[in-house]
Amino acid sequence: MSLQREIPVMANLLQSNDFQAEINRKHFQKHNCLTINLIGSPGAGKTTLLERTIAVLKSKHNLAVIEGDIFTSKDAERIAQHDIPVVQINTGGGCHLDSKMVEKVLPQFQWDNLDLMIIENVGNLVCPADFDLGEDFKVVVLSVVEGDDKPSKYPVIFRNSKVAVLNKMDLLGLVETDLGVMKEDILKINPEIKIFEVSCRTGEGLEDWTNWLDDQVRKTKERGA
Amino acid sequence: MSLQREIPVMANLLQSNDFQAEINRKHFQKHNCLTINLIGSPGAGKTTLLERTIAVLKSKHNLAVIEGDIFTSKDAERIAQHDIPVVQINTGGGCHLDSKMVEKVLPQFQWDNLDLMIIENVGNLVCPADFDLGEDFKVVVLSVVEGDDKPSKYPVIFRNSKVAVLNKMDLLGLVETDLGVMKEDILKINPEIKIFEVSCRTGEGLEDWTNWLDDQVRKTKERGA
Repeated sequence: MSLQREIPVMANLLQSNDFQAEINRKHFQKHNCLTINLIGSPGAGKTTLLERTIAVLKSKHNLAVIEGDIFTSKDAERIAQHDIPVVQINTGGGCHLDSKMVEKVLPQFQWDNLDLMIIENVGNLVCPADFDLGEDFKVVVLSVVEGDDKPSKYPVIFRNSKVAVLNKMDLLGLVETDLGVMKEDILKINPEIKIFEVSCRTGEGLEDWTNWLDDQVRKTKERGA
Repeated sequence: MSLQREIPVMANLLQSNDFQAEINRKHFQKHNCLTINLIGSPGAGKTTLLERTIAVLKSKHNLAVIEGDIFTSKDAERIAQHDIPVVQINTGGGCHLDSKMVEKVLPQFQWDNLDLMIIENVGNLVCPADFDLGEDFKVVVLSVVEGDDKPSKYPVIFRNSKVAVLNKMDLLGLVETDLGVMKEDILKINPEIKIFEVSCRTGEGLEDWTNWLDDQVRKTKERGA
């Protein structure tokens, strides 16, 4: 994706992706279903955040999940245990989901009954940042263990996300990460971004995140009421 | 990289990459310089491992580093403090290094004086796995904090690496990771891989890694003596 000669191919690809993403977006909007695209490195804690979020919100709203992975259905199996609809997309080596992969699995859900669709992308802080799936917004999950230099080294995903969830706060004192630097750099890249500091392991900070997301889902439902 | 229609483009790209990689490899071999390609997620600890390795080996061998990053020269600045030659490649959004990027910076080093070249790839467990840079072998760095499911979810890099360095062992008891499962899955994918368990923070286990690498460098030097 980075060589000069590849740029035209990449441009076509992104145009074609954006076209389908708009169709997906209209589909989500028609059904008043808030749709979010969860992105982060392998091991940032996306699936655990998803499980924690489902546990709180599933009594209030109708949720569903699309799981993106390169291989295996491990994450989808974890989500299925929470008794909500989940569909696995395996990219077979591909480093990100795209809007056409998402479109293909849409018929597998009962859209009249859905309030919140969470799409968990492939574990990768780089490539998924460029691909609109038709979601309402992207949520980047960054583990504080990854280091405070990560926002400035991987700015695109922070620029393109509405929310940053900083996870594994329980390990903060045990690593070199300066949380102030991390947050400052994120806000330099995207002054509008909303930051949550959580530990999916201890539960710390999760209520702020689930309350906020609950609010977003309610607003989307009211739009259609 | 995952859509059907992209496969021909990707195949051309990999062929063209492999062609240049072989030229790079001949260059490294001609100079009896062991060259390794360090790959892992953002925050796995690649740069810290590199710094720790330099500190031990620089009195024994002539080292140099190529730093791959999407943006910023933060890592190159860290390496430059160790008084060894370092060149930064910024991919400008690209998710991996390729052999042509590496070729372009080769003239910036004094090859007659080099014994070990370490190339630190872009932080990404997915895309760099497919791109041969002409190195002797790949080293995958995985933080145990990332979770024991990562090898089976991202098998390509484990299949293509000669060595796996499992980092952040000091945090092992504080996370859910089962080290036995992690290692078993790595060995299922690649029974020949050499595994080192280290903490770049505390220094635990690093001696085994640097002794082994020292040995590899000596063998390469002897080949040319």
